[in-house]
Amino acid sequence: MQNFNYQTPTRLIFGKDVVESLPEVMSGFGKKILLTYGGGSIKKIGLYDKVKGLLKDFEIYELADIQPNPKYDPSVLDGVRICKENNVDVILSVGGGSVLDCSKAIAAGAKYDGDPWDLISYKVKAQAALPIVDIITLAATGSEYDPGGVISRTETNDKIGYMDSLLYPVVSFLDPTYTFTVSKKQTAAGCADAMNHIMEQYFCEDSTLLNDGFMEAGLKSLMVNAKKCLENPEDYTARAEMMLDCTYGCNGIYSLGNSPSGWPCHGMEHALSAYYDITHGEGLAIITPRWMKHILSEKTVDRFVKYGVNVFGIDANQDKFAIAEQAIDATYKFFESINIPMHLKEVGIDESRIDEMAKHVADNEGLENAWATLMQKDIADIFRASL
Amino acid sequence: MQNFNYQTPTRLIFGKDVVESLPEVMSGFGKKILLTYGGGSIKKIGLYDKVKGLLKDFEIYELADIQPNPKYDPSVLDGVRICKENNVDVILSVGGGSVLDCSKAIAAGAKYDGDPWDLISYKVKAQAALPIVDIITLAATGSEYDPGGVISRTETNDKIGYMDSLLYPVVSFLDPTYTFTVSKKQTAAGCADAMNHIMEQYFCEDSTLLNDGFMEAGLKSLMVNAKKCLENPEDYTARAEMMLDCTYGCNGIYSLGNSPSGWPCHGMEHALSAYYDITHGEGLAIITPRWMKHILSEKTVDRFVKYGVNVFGIDANQDKFAIAEQAIDATYKFFESINIPMHLKEVGIDESRIDEMAKHVADNEGLENAWATLMQKDIADIFRASL
Repeated sequence: MQNFNYQTPTRLIFGKDVVESLPEVMSGFGKKILLTYGGGSIKKIGLYDKVKGLLKDFEIYELADIQPNPKYDPSVLDGVRICKENNVDVILSVGGGSVLDCSKAIAAGAKYDGDPWDLISYKVKAQAALPIVDIITLAATGSEYDPGGVISRTETNDKIGYMDSLLYPVVSFLDPTYTFTVSKKQTAAGCADAMNHIMEQYFCEDSTLLNDGFMEAGLKSLMVNAKKCLENPEDYTARAEMMLDCTYGCNGIYSLGNSPSGWPCHGMEHALSAYYDITHGEGLAIITPRWMKHILSEKTVDRFVKYGVNVFGIDANQDKFAIAEQAIDATYKFFESINIPMHLKEVGIDESRIDEMAKHVADNEGLENAWATLMQKDIADIFRASL
Repeated sequence: MQNFNYQTPTRLIFGKDVVESLPEVMSGFGKKILLTYGGGSIKKIGLYDKVKGLLKDFEIYELADIQPNPKYDPSVLDGVRICKENNVDVILSVGGGSVLDCSKAIAAGAKYDGDPWDLISYKVKAQAALPIVDIITLAATGSEYDPGGVISRTETNDKIGYMDSLLYPVVSFLDPTYTFTVSKKQTAAGCADAMNHIMEQYFCEDSTLLNDGFMEAGLKSLMVNAKKCLENPEDYTARAEMMLDCTYGCNGIYSLGNSPSGWPCHGMEHALSAYYDITHGEGLAIITPRWMKHILSEKTVDRFVKYGVNVFGIDANQDKFAIAEQAIDATYKFFESINIPMHLKEVGIDESRIDEMAKHVADNEGLENAWATLMQKDIADIFRASL
């Protein structure tokens, strides 16, 4: 077991109608709020009007139209400018993980005199950040309980996971009813994203009984509850459980003391969605079983056996490679069963830029240090197997 | 799933030699430290000298001899007096859960003008508390990651669980090597305490797949690792896993969104250790299987089935009450297998004060509202079955 230093200071306020306490929470941080949101789904479900009504005594500036795979230009730059021009006190992010990720980059940029890309690209360490409160409307990324965000820069095909302990939200509101209207496509993609967050941590050299049990529980709960959400989008209990399942994904609690894994699927998927702007969770679901097949070896097989037996209930009395193959197959079939397109071609990606993307990943993601080493050729092979 | 509001702000610094960063951590809180500890085991293992050496540039006041089931008088009162007389900035608790529990009561009392018992008895809500840092030397209570402590007042046989969100430690140092010298008796009692923390939350009306999986993992990890620690007290990995297993016990993360359980075994055990000053974990281990048998009914049986199948691997293809009985039996046998005395008589408790204790519990612990209601007669029956 490895040494660790862990703290998640975020307060989770979870459940139906919890947003009623928003004015009280916000008043702890100041009067001037930057309200960030995406393409308008929060207007459709009435949440925008609800928030504006609750915050009628505050001074609100707005940054709308934050896109999935949120963009440095214009969203982060616009947000930073609004904060600086108006001495904003606190950011309120209302939406999914992309809105929140973008808000985190804005929070750091607003307290920095130079180009915010210096921070995101780790050229400069942030010294301060605006506090962030969020109302999360999509169960997926876990950004509501972690200090990171992923920002894309279109002109360079960069998609960077930017983490800083200054960027934990101070308060996250999670009302499962706001996820009732999430489409089947996004519900499934959110499930795949959250499952992959767990798998990225599960597949490593050294774990504990406790962490393995936590992660196996997380995976099983996600599979059961995502299916229920797809069958009945207004199943409160299933939406609630799925929401909490996703929350723990990236804050590290699943792998305290574990040896590092390298998060290889995220490293690879970042290229796919940077080059093609696909849905992150779908990209992950497509890559994951191909990555598993690619790295299956004498070194890795025991982890796949544990995963297969404990998560999918595969009969343990078989050859270990047979169990591992069945576990990988079960992973693929689960994603397929929730109607995720399981080939890159189905999401508009063909052979043409595979080598370019593989080189980009190999040059930028450090996957030569992943638990199962991935060099440029491995990455290209996994992409091709995913076509 | 119920609404919840959750935050654990404590930083965990975990692993071998992490205490080296103590000066840096403490300097964030001030120069004047109240160092609290127990009967001297920290001197035997060299930790006292280590801490004094590391903190040679600080102004240190000491409160020694804090007892298991820590006492209001003299420990809490003495600690409060020292803090007030010397304007102490921060408390450093070095020892097990009792030292830390006592330190929490001192932290609140030091910032209160009246009698600290007003706070502990919830007559007055604390408005502030000194920051608390701890170095934990026993895997058991989870006090290092929760906002509560248990304080005993000898003259009234009160043993009160005092909780306040001001009392989360700001930093907890957990070095598993400091638990190498913990006796077999205390190792086993710590395991039973931590297991009971989980069981208290597991047995409720309404839980989630995720929480159940977390708790089942916690129980299984505790059983496996406690046995390893007993066999080889210097097994670092086992001591480390057991330490982390215990950490999550009481901070609520195991039951976010669950319906309340009432923590009945703790309510009952508090009377046993208040009247007889027995080891808390042993008292819990003795009561738990008798409580289980007492509450087993058509209403509760399904939880016992889940517990038996998932924690002990009991064959699910049987009558549900048969599975439940086997699960209760397995619980008893596990505690017995780690050499916990499983009868009250073995720890010096006889029939004589059972009715008095049962009345005290019924009057003070609110167990009529537990998941499985316990009235005074139920409590007395459970005590008698435990003799």
